[in-house]
Amino acid sequence: MTASAIQNITVEEQAKKAKKAARTLGILTTEEKNQALRTVADALEANFEAIIAANLIDLKKGEEKGFEQAFMDRLSLNKERIFDFAEGLRQVAELPDPIGDVMSGWTLENGLKVEEVRVPLGVIGMIYEARPNVTADAAGLALKSGNAIVLKGGSSALNSNRSIVKIIHQALEKTAIPKDAVQFIDSLNREATQQLFTMKEHIDVLIPRGGASLIKAVVENATVPVLETGVGNCHIYVDQEGDAEKAINILINAKTDRPAVCNAAETLIVHQNWLKEHKGLLADALTKHGITVHGDETALAELPNVQPATETDWANEYLSLDLAVKTVNSLEEAIDHIDLYGTKHSEAIITENTATAKKFMQLVDAAALYHNASTRFTDGGALGFGAEIGISTQKLHARGPMGLPALTTRKYLMSGNGQVR
Amino acid sequence: MTASAIQNITVEEQAKKAKKAARTLGILTTEEKNQALRTVADALEANFEAIIAANLIDLKKGEEKGFEQAFMDRLSLNKERIFDFAEGLRQVAELPDPIGDVMSGWTLENGLKVEEVRVPLGVIGMIYEARPNVTADAAGLALKSGNAIVLKGGSSALNSNRSIVKIIHQALEKTAIPKDAVQFIDSLNREATQQLFTMKEHIDVLIPRGGASLIKAVVENATVPVLETGVGNCHIYVDQEGDAEKAINILINAKTDRPAVCNAAETLIVHQNWLKEHKGLLADALTKHGITVHGDETALAELPNVQPATETDWANEYLSLDLAVKTVNSLEEAIDHIDLYGTKHSEAIITENTATAKKFMQLVDAAALYHNASTRFTDGGALGFGAEIGISTQKLHARGPMGLPALTTRKYLMSGNGQVR
Repeated sequence: MTASAIQNITVEEQAKKAKKAARTLGILTTEEKNQALRTVADALEANFEAIIAANLIDLKKGEEKGFEQAFMDRLSLNKERIFDFAEGLRQVAELPDPIGDVMSGWTLENGLKVEEVRVPLGVIGMIYEARPNVTADAAGLALKSGNAIVLKGGSSALNSNRSIVKIIHQALEKTAIPKDAVQFIDSLNREATQQLFTMKEHIDVLIPRGGASLIKAVVENATVPVLETGVGNCHIYVDQEGDAEKAINILINAKTDRPAVCNAAETLIVHQNWLKEHKGLLADALTKHGITVHGDETALAELPNVQPATETDWANEYLSLDLAVKTVNSLEEAIDHIDLYGTKHSEAIITENTATAKKFMQLVDAAALYHNASTRFTDGGALGFGAEIGISTQKLHARGPMGLPALTTRKYLMSGNGQVR
Repeated sequence: MTASAIQNITVEEQAKKAKKAARTLGILTTEEKNQALRTVADALEANFEAIIAANLIDLKKGEEKGFEQAFMDRLSLNKERIFDFAEGLRQVAELPDPIGDVMSGWTLENGLKVEEVRVPLGVIGMIYEARPNVTADAAGLALKSGNAIVLKGGSSALNSNRSIVKIIHQALEKTAIPKDAVQFIDSLNREATQQLFTMKEHIDVLIPRGGASLIKAVVENATVPVLETGVGNCHIYVDQEGDAEKAINILINAKTDRPAVCNAAETLIVHQNWLKEHKGLLADALTKHGITVHGDETALAELPNVQPATETDWANEYLSLDLAVKTVNSLEEAIDHIDLYGTKHSEAIITENTATAKKFMQLVDAAALYHNASTRFTDGGALGFGAEIGISTQKLHARGPMGLPALTTRKYLMSGNGQVR
């Protein structure tokens, strides 16, 4: 038997175990689930040294492989980070439990009672990259919403993830949640990930978290339904009636506050009348904040130190202090550009004209539309959703920041006394 | 240039036109959309003879190809059927418009106003088989919910569909809805269908309507998100505490009222104690209604005229007056059988024990669960949803009968005065 065949059996067996555990977990009380999350949080804190020791092995391997600094930062854990994600689990315990909510209910003329109730999805497959904190975060959100989870983390974090999951399993043994509800695919084998793509019998949804290429691979190859997250090629459109101070504050915030996150701005679309009037202010702000500008011909002519923009500049996230600048003559032209290059994440208009803002918000197809505010607010925490499992850029099921309800579905329960049609 | 390359340009061009039309359609008023639906309904009635003439061509070709009677029935149109689907459009006009609903709204501490509003999905790709009424039904539901639609009907109904779409287009020219909002892929080419599978740029969702093999082909090959509909391998579980009269009435209704639809029962799961007590009554009812029984060993021993059931009997829809009979010793065994063979559509338990019923409804994973009622109620009309675009057997986005809200998504609209993070 080949190694891959052995792996094949194992991943499917794990998914089956998760499915079985989901049945028990799905009907636990809120307090049983909350108590389990607190027990896991305590265990992670009590065992932080073991996690750090495992993380050091991953960091050493990462150094040997010459991973870049940003990657190593995401991979790295310390006592504070571990206590942070333990505390995150306690916060999830405090959130309202979506499960069992009666969303609607009515009685038919024949006396048949109908109830629409919220239930867990079942088993969530989570495919993610180097951040080991996702292991604890995702498990916490899944368990609170009554779902089992199959975790497949990036191979560079294998030792860290293995250590975190071992502690979660030991803690769950003291709780009402079966430890099989958290499955960890302990493999460096890429095939293990691909097996999850088509395991429709056992896995109800796949959530990829990571870069654009990971998400693309999952979307293109999975037959299991996918919750697509994270790629945000976000635009700030400054209309000719945009207030200069608001425009510049918002642009700088959206570009520089955390350039590597998905709700950061990547392109400034600017009405040429506004650009001509305020180019001095704009140029000063861009220079002051160390922003590298890639512009179209008008931007090249009006602003200093601009590099010519190519198709790549319009189409991709920089995730850095780079900014593309596109000039337009009308709202329609701005919307056409967003239609072509946007990823339906977050788009902003800066204008003092309410009618123009309304038109922008009606016609642009995205999860979050902003009038005179920064795209950085597209975030479960910032918008008051509590914890989030990711930001959906798809239209089906969930759109925008996804809190616990995104991990649920519904059942219609009909109670009768012999009704037939 | 090859024929397929020409087709390629055409289907993509059609999808692009639909996308452009969707932008206009998405912001029309409810009255503009309703008026357009009524205009289309009138036109279909006024031109029923042209539709019948086109349908005759399809019927003649179908006869030549020797299609079976049930297929020819679905394909066949007459004045009454055409007036029925015209009337259906008027009924859709009467339904509440989901678009523009403010689903929730709040203000952050910093003054940023947040509104969650319901918006159209955009462009719906509808892939269906021989029923030409779907052409009008699906177009009506799409337009009312502000969506453009790309229709790809079965090749056996090509002439009928072409005629219906021509009338829809002529009627739309007199309304606020751009006629490009209804695209019809006028092709016998299978590649045309496959092109829709991956057109993520232009098509927001695919809805396959037809047999299990069509749905499977779409789910396995599409990268565009799919709303999976229709396969119902539904079970009636008669518990040992099931009332005999209710059990038999419900079973016979669920099996025989309309055997070919997805909410019909396919398998009777029966507790062996109940079977032993009521086998005479059950056998009489099955015989009286001309039901062919395929049973396990116990059923073979207890009931007359039973054929031995094979894996196929448990796993597939009969869509005929055949019934599989599985005997069990416990609720758990019944649930395990449903878990293994069910399609998460509709499942019923017959029992006078409320605790047993509650456990069944909690533990069985399906869109619709029934206690002492027929599975035949899983239907948008019967449950009071108004028209339905199909019955979802998936868990994401929509589950169970899908009315107009299933064809919508949301946008978060944030209005500020310069807020940054």
